[in-house]
Amino acid sequence: MRYDDTRGPGKGGVRYHPNVTMDEVQSLAFWMTFKCALLNLPFGGAKGGITLNPKELSKQELERLSRGYIEAIADFIGPDIDILAPDVYTNQMIMGWMMDQYNIIQRKISPGVVTGKPQTMGGSQGRDTATGTGAYYVIQTILPKFELIPEKTTVAVQGFGKAGAVVAELLGKVGYKVVAVSDSKGGIYAEQGLDIVSIRNYKEEHQGIAAIYCQDTVCNIGEHQSITNEELLGLDVDVLIPAALENQITEENADNVRAKFIFEVANGPINSAADTILDEKGIYVFPDILVNAGGVTVSYFEWVQNRSGLYWTKTEVNQRMRDKMMSEAQEVWV
Amino acid sequence: MRYDDTRGPGKGGVRYHPNVTMDEVQSLAFWMTFKCALLNLPFGGAKGGITLNPKELSKQELERLSRGYIEAIADFIGPDIDILAPDVYTNQMIMGWMMDQYNIIQRKISPGVVTGKPQTMGGSQGRDTATGTGAYYVIQTILPKFELIPEKTTVAVQGFGKAGAVVAELLGKVGYKVVAVSDSKGGIYAEQGLDIVSIRNYKEEHQGIAAIYCQDTVCNIGEHQSITNEELLGLDVDVLIPAALENQITEENADNVRAKFIFEVANGPINSAADTILDEKGIYVFPDILVNAGGVTVSYFEWVQNRSGLYWTKTEVNQRMRDKMMSEAQEVWV
Amino acid sequence: MRYDDTRGPGKGGVRYHPNVTMDEVQSLAFWMTFKCALLNLPFGGAKGGITLNPKELSKQELERLSRGYIEAIADFIGPDIDILAPDVYTNQMIMGWMMDQYNIIQRKISPGVVTGKPQTMGGSQGRDTATGTGAYYVIQTILPKFELIPEKTTVAVQGFGKAGAVVAELLGKVGYKVVAVSDSKGGIYAEQGLDIVSIRNYKEEHQGIAAIYCQDTVCNIGEHQSITNEELLGLDVDVLIPAALENQITEENADNVRAKFIFEVANGPINSAADTILDEKGIYVFPDILVNAGGVTVSYFEWVQNRSGLYWTKTEVNQRMRDKMMSEAQEVWV
Amino acid sequence: MRYDDTRGPGKGGVRYHPNVTMDEVQSLAFWMTFKCALLNLPFGGAKGGITLNPKELSKQELERLSRGYIEAIADFIGPDIDILAPDVYTNQMIMGWMMDQYNIIQRKISPGVVTGKPQTMGGSQGRDTATGTGAYYVIQTILPKFELIPEKTTVAVQGFGKAGAVVAELLGKVGYKVVAVSDSKGGIYAEQGLDIVSIRNYKEEHQGIAAIYCQDTVCNIGEHQSITNEELLGLDVDVLIPAALENQITEENADNVRAKFIFEVANGPINSAADTILDEKGIYVFPDILVNAGGVTVSYFEWVQNRSGLYWTKTEVNQRMRDKMMSEAQEVWV
Amino acid sequence: MRYDDTRGPGKGGVRYHPNVTMDEVQSLAFWMTFKCALLNLPFGGAKGGITLNPKELSKQELERLSRGYIEAIADFIGPDIDILAPDVYTNQMIMGWMMDQYNIIQRKISPGVVTGKPQTMGGSQGRDTATGTGAYYVIQTILPKFELIPEKTTVAVQGFGKAGAVVAELLGKVGYKVVAVSDSKGGIYAEQGLDIVSIRNYKEEHQGIAAIYCQDTVCNIGEHQSITNEELLGLDVDVLIPAALENQITEENADNVRAKFIFEVANGPINSAADTILDEKGIYVFPDILVNAGGVTVSYFEWVQNRSGLYWTKTEVNQRMRDKMMSEAQEVWV
Amino acid sequence: MRYDDTRGPGKGGVRYHPNVTMDEVQSLAFWMTFKCALLNLPFGGAKGGITLNPKELSKQELERLSRGYIEAIADFIGPDIDILAPDVYTNQMIMGWMMDQYNIIQRKISPGVVTGKPQTMGGSQGRDTATGTGAYYVIQTILPKFELIPEKTTVAVQGFGKAGAVVAELLGKVGYKVVAVSDSKGGIYAEQGLDIVSIRNYKEEHQGIAAIYCQDTVCNIGEHQSITNEELLGLDVDVLIPAALENQITEENADNVRAKFIFEVANGPINSAADTILDEKGIYVFPDILVNAGGVTVSYFEWVQNRSGLYWTKTEVNQRMRDKMMSEAQEVWV
Repeated sequence: MRYDDTRGPGKGGVRYHPNVTMDEVQSLAFWMTFKCALLNLPFGGAKGGITLNPKELSKQELERLSRGYIEAIADFIGPDIDILAPDVYTNQMIMGWMMDQYNIIQRKISPGVVTGKPQTMGGSQGRDTATGTGAYYVIQTILPKFELIPEKTTVAVQGFGKAGAVVAELLGKVGYKVVAVSDSKGGIYAEQGLDIVSIRNYKEEHQGIAAIYCQDTVCNIGEHQSITNEELLGLDVDVLIPAALENQITEENADNVRAKFIFEVANGPINSAADTILDEKGIYVFPDILVNAGGVTVSYFEWVQNRSGLYWTKTEVNQRMRDKMMSEAQEVWV
Repeated sequence: MRYDDTRGPGKGGVRYHPNVTMDEVQSLAFWMTFKCALLNLPFGGAKGGITLNPKELSKQELERLSRGYIEAIADFIGPDIDILAPDVYTNQMIMGWMMDQYNIIQRKISPGVVTGKPQTMGGSQGRDTATGTGAYYVIQTILPKFELIPEKTTVAVQGFGKAGAVVAELLGKVGYKVVAVSDSKGGIYAEQGLDIVSIRNYKEEHQGIAAIYCQDTVCNIGEHQSITNEELLGLDVDVLIPAALENQITEENADNVRAKFIFEVANGPINSAADTILDEKGIYVFPDILVNAGGVTVSYFEWVQNRSGLYWTKTEVNQRMRDKMMSEAQEVWV
Repeated sequence: MRYDDTRGPGKGGVRYHPNVTMDEVQSLAFWMTFKCALLNLPFGGAKGGITLNPKELSKQELERLSRGYIEAIADFIGPDIDILAPDVYTNQMIMGWMMDQYNIIQRKISPGVVTGKPQTMGGSQGRDTATGTGAYYVIQTILPKFELIPEKTTVAVQGFGKAGAVVAELLGKVGYKVVAVSDSKGGIYAEQGLDIVSIRNYKEEHQGIAAIYCQDTVCNIGEHQSITNEELLGLDVDVLIPAALENQITEENADNVRAKFIFEVANGPINSAADTILDEKGIYVFPDILVNAGGVTVSYFEWVQNRSGLYWTKTEVNQRMRDKMMSEAQEVWV
Repeated sequence: MRYDDTRGPGKGGVRYHPNVTMDEVQSLAFWMTFKCALLNLPFGGAKGGITLNPKELSKQELERLSRGYIEAIADFIGPDIDILAPDVYTNQMIMGWMMDQYNIIQRKISPGVVTGKPQTMGGSQGRDTATGTGAYYVIQTILPKFELIPEKTTVAVQGFGKAGAVVAELLGKVGYKVVAVSDSKGGIYAEQGLDIVSIRNYKEEHQGIAAIYCQDTVCNIGEHQSITNEELLGLDVDVLIPAALENQITEENADNVRAKFIFEVANGPINSAADTILDEKGIYVFPDILVNAGGVTVSYFEWVQNRSGLYWTKTEVNQRMRDKMMSEAQEVWV
Repeated sequence: MRYDDTRGPGKGGVRYHPNVTMDEVQSLAFWMTFKCALLNLPFGGAKGGITLNPKELSKQELERLSRGYIEAIADFIGPDIDILAPDVYTNQMIMGWMMDQYNIIQRKISPGVVTGKPQTMGGSQGRDTATGTGAYYVIQTILPKFELIPEKTTVAVQGFGKAGAVVAELLGKVGYKVVAVSDSKGGIYAEQGLDIVSIRNYKEEHQGIAAIYCQDTVCNIGEHQSITNEELLGLDVDVLIPAALENQITEENADNVRAKFIFEVANGPINSAADTILDEKGIYVFPDILVNAGGVTVSYFEWVQNRSGLYWTKTEVNQRMRDKMMSEAQEVWV
Repeated sequence: MRYDDTRGPGKGGVRYHPNVTMDEVQSLAFWMTFKCALLNLPFGGAKGGITLNPKELSKQELERLSRGYIEAIADFIGPDIDILAPDVYTNQMIMGWMMDQYNIIQRKISPGVVTGKPQTMGGSQGRDTATGTGAYYVIQTILPKFELIPEKTTVAVQGFGKAGAVVAELLGKVGYKVVAVSDSKGGIYAEQGLDIVSIRNYKEEHQGIAAIYCQDTVCNIGEHQSITNEELLGLDVDVLIPAALENQITEENADNVRAKFIFEVANGPINSAADTILDEKGIYVFPDILVNAGGVTVSYFEWVQNRSGLYWTKTEVNQRMRDKMMSEAQEVWV
């Protein structure tokens, strides 16, 4: 489903989900069009979906399905036509199969048809941490405009997955006081700021940060207290970063929000009713379309590297992403 | 009309003009071959033309004509075959139609088939000012070899269009004394040097610099006097920059020229009889094929950006153009 | 003969030799696969060969043969499929014919199908000196890990062809004491170190360095003594660099080797029996697959430049090659 | 919308209609799959549609729409992929535009992508009369199996458009007693049989056969009486041929039908409830999928002629159609 | 040079001639367009030419020229685009090279790009005699309309090359009295009719029929007399067939013509001034565009056979040509 | 493995066999080149093979292998390049997979790439019986030249598989006295001639004709006696038809042969030593390359039908095969 290709080839994820519909795919393609335009990427928006439950398939069935999908659509995808990317329930491995099947049909190595590939097949460095790192660059561009000093700025991060943990850690490194983080089971709070690296290590060992707040006597995270996700959203912090699921802040809890700045790292964490309320309260909300665009930006870089055949180091990727995100953030929020 | 493709795909403008002939197109393609070779661009020379008067066509007819032209020649153009560019009476808009029609036929986004496109379709930053900026870099490379100090060097610029105004302003910025500029209606002269930025602003407001010399009492350009184009060419300056039309210095007025250095920013401003005279007088003439090559260079950069999919900022474009122009100028005038 | 294309298009030389066999071509393709993987180049391995004696052919016959070879294999080569390069008895001129014939068939300029082309057809700067320069970068990365100080480190270089002379000269420039060099006729030795630049100049004038050691009274190389190739291999130096032919160090002379470090700049200068002996003696051998990979690296850069259309200066080529070689050497020899 | 391509490229009409829906297009493609399989044509089924009212468009808008449609779908149509044909509100002229646009994109003459083209662009002889003639061949194959003698067999034809008039005329020519025909305004009946050629001529002059039954005193059709469409369907004839619209015989009037044989020349003239009733009454119904397949058969012949480049005379077309229809009818109704 | 491709791919000969010009090629393409349309062939008109003297080239140079020509134009020829054929100074052998070179570029066997090929490469049976045989069929269609009885109809044929000899022989076989034939040196006349087969055999042995009329005492042709070409044109015969060169009947000799019917087997044997005179005299002139179209018709058949891959026997070719020529002649001369 | 493509695309079977070698494939391609040339088919020779034991593979593995084979060779096969066909251990089903995989890669229906397909995918009528029927036509052309009367001509057929049974039955139908047939287990003999149809029916019921000669009391074949294969070859008949395996008549038994004419329906049933002996004995041997060419001829017809899209009835196939075989047999044995 390509929405518009005036700016360049279409770009968008393929999702495998039992409830995917034509309407959903169309609106996601529409949304991608805007996102790519905002970032000044030479892409139009696109999206694809297969209605099925990938959890019911064996790995071999998943491979056949993915290859068959490419056989069906091979005529209207390509590095200069429509580019695929992972989305809900599709991953590196699936992208690899898709690219390989496309190569079989095209009779040449054509890595640019797919982004989010394994690195050995032409994937980019730095894609794992792209969303969090990109969000960090946006925040680093915006907050100084309001003359906030990191050391005096408190931050709460909802969601400690790939994006949330990265943004928390990067903000911590430059001096921000990250006072609260959470995952789906709950979170922890420390007025003096948390040591994010320790939390991350803890989580990697214990599969989740849940253990921290239930067994704090035995962990070395330092002084802190347990907190619910709901409490986190209502903390009196300068910056609130919802980085978990969509629809976390709604008309039901928007009034409780006390942060001055919200950066949407998750997709659509604030519904439109809540948006109005926050606006009336004078809270600055920086939307997902900009804040979490680090992911699509590195996808774009992957495509660029595939075209030139020249692969960048992780440092180069981050440097270019930083330039891109900061310059777009500048342009948008003068 | 491709002249030679040993060096790479052909490159050249498409002109719409009532008097375009096969012979003219051939000799322009020949001239482009030399220009690209001199600049070390990986291009051969090419040129195309349609014999018609574009002013007699409606915009819709112009679009159909341009698209029909591409339908006719689509088999022998392409980013790796022959690349189109604007020329006399063809512009960004026409290049956009041509690229779009080529994409329809090729079934993919193929921006590199055309340069001089709108930026939203893959055009390059910095193309508007490319010729003037390029000429400036050449001048900046050459004059120091003769140990001229900007503050003690006087410059006269004939023509205050895109190229002339840019070169005048850039030279002014680094300290040269630009003592005279003109447009088709006449010019102004000030022994102590002119404030080019003011003149440019004045011109933008008043459509032309004509008003300055007729109404100088009311303008804030500073002390100056009126001057004809003919007088400008004969000024006793160090550097003369013809940046207007072709054939301005001929055997009839070559004897009057008193400048020590002439940089041809216009195409062919000195005819070959005049060339001989100037040579005998010991005047250094730096030819258009080098001096105004900033335009084709940025065209080349546009094609490079289209290939890689990575778009450069204006600063990067100018930086690379500078390197290119200076290094070629070095090589040519040791 | 493509061996594996998981990493990208196949890459490998085409050799013209009377004894080329299918088995040889297969094992060379296998070896290239490893080399490209070690260097992290986006290439699989490949190799091609024609069984004939090119010395028996006229230049015109050679051209027809080369063009006919491309006609036969045009369906399975290409910049994204299999890329050709020069090898034994094939050179720039032959690569140029091959690329030209491929362009005729493909109906577009497609320089990336071949590397090792003439520069005017898209060849890269710095290819001539690539192997030697690359070896130098590897040595410069490795030796400091063993805390060797250039001024106190003696080096012997067997082979004074393109690779050996370059590596000797570059090492000399940064202070290493290159005490011995040789060519096929013999070599020279000077305890205090040789002046490599003088030797290279001498060789260029006299077609070989042989004259130096036979007529030393008349040359200005400085104090030195004659030495055989065999003696050179047994010198008591820190670093031995075999840069001539294969199978120079075998079980027959391995015991004589007294160097502490050997860098294989030639292909396979040490046979596997000798390898074991040297290992037992505690000598560090850095293998050809890494040490002489500068050649394939610049080939890769040539292909990258062909893809982007942007050509690098010699400085840029060397800078990027250095980054590549040093980073891979780091990774391999931690 | 292709339904299945096991048998060969998809084949189906493109309709322009304000009420076209995705579901309708899918079921028509499904139905075409069966029809082509029944006729043993090397085609799968397909169908396309644009939701719009073609009557609201100017001819120029219709052309741009048709060409734009081809631009959008050009990647998945073709003589060996999916073949277009006229359907509701699309005609020869539109097929011509579509083929021309496809040729522009494909850069060659490719008439087989579309059937129902004008003859000068590769259309087939005999397409106008194909449906009627094909139906005639089916009837001529079936009735003799029941030992009906033409001269003693009465026939009623509902619908006097292209298909109905042709089948009536051909049956008349070989002796059948066509006792009744009608158009949308009503019909005429003559016990002794009608002179179909006269009626056709009359109709051509007077735009419809309506005039016959209102002004019978002045026309030379011979003795006859007026009759309504409803009465026609209930006549006591041997053979009833509904050749007008769909859903003419339903559960409401099926009981009135007295014919022994019904040949569906229209698409779906009998609904499924009526089908059951007629079956119970012992009436033989020969379905549209066979009876009116003359149209798709000549479409197929057009495609065959386009492939070979050899064009058949009208006689050859009819001869081959006859062989095809009779052999398939034989096979189906043993 | 394609003139018009509405009807199908362009079709036309390639001539090698020192005086070929752009204008000539254009008008020949125009003339081919009409000829193909008259014959109802699915072709537009085309023509190509190279300005050179083929007699100055060695066979190898001719091959390289012909292959190079295809390399230059390969993008805009093809079995469905523009089809080449022999013309002045190009022949079977050249067509074979051209087809082979096209195949090399296209990477498949594509015989339909060229007609007039050797039979082993896909050429048609019966092409040698096509023009004469075609003319015969036209004459056989036309004369009966005027109720001429072969045995009472006298015929004179100017030119005894491939076309003239064939038409004379075929007419003789069915009873016409061929009373005069000639070649460039002169001709023979026999009131009772000539034995064409004997003359043809004689000519094959003696290279020309000249010997017949100078040495008639020794030859067995039967009673006859010598005659000049000019006399032949003025004979009092029923049918005159100019089958030699162009411009044989002009305003200077048109008045002498006494035949009642003229069939132009040569190209343009009557100039336009003469046309008017003959018309005024009531002489029927049947033009070359119809009469000598047997050649292009068999070319067309060759292309059809190449498309289907099914090759016809000589009998089939002649049968189909007869049907084609007779039906077109019928249509034109009702 | 293509041997020569001067005559057209290569044509040859793909065999799956544990002992297939490169040499074998080459010589089979060579042999096919001659066969196609002899038959005047527009094909060169080709052959392919995979070294494996197909009996060890599951059906699914066989499918993956066959599709993978096409993926590997897709660049150099095609209806106009190289055409595949079944051979040892490959069949209709495998050809169907191969064609389907080729279509997936080519993105269109391209049945002509493979012959021997299932009829629903574009296979030809009459392929099953092609070899036997073709042999029959050859025999019917040759024997009358020797003035043999069917009713007085005795025939022995070794091998009662597809080819042998068909040729025996067809000869029986026109009156020849087929006095002996056999299969691998043995045969039967009847001086007065056998009823081939009865034997064929018997065989179909009882899986082999073995039962006939062991249980003749219970079967209705008529009076006959058992016979070994060796005895059959030595029968005193007019015509001997080896239609079983290769190398049946060798130097060891050639002396026993008493037939006057031998038609090789099997591939290579006579070794070259035997050939010499038979020749010396004055026995006419008609070789397999002609006699069993009915198979490749119908393959060719399948390809022709795929190209034109027009499918022939079984009658048409046999009629055209007859014309082809008879005309080639005529040409060869004047």
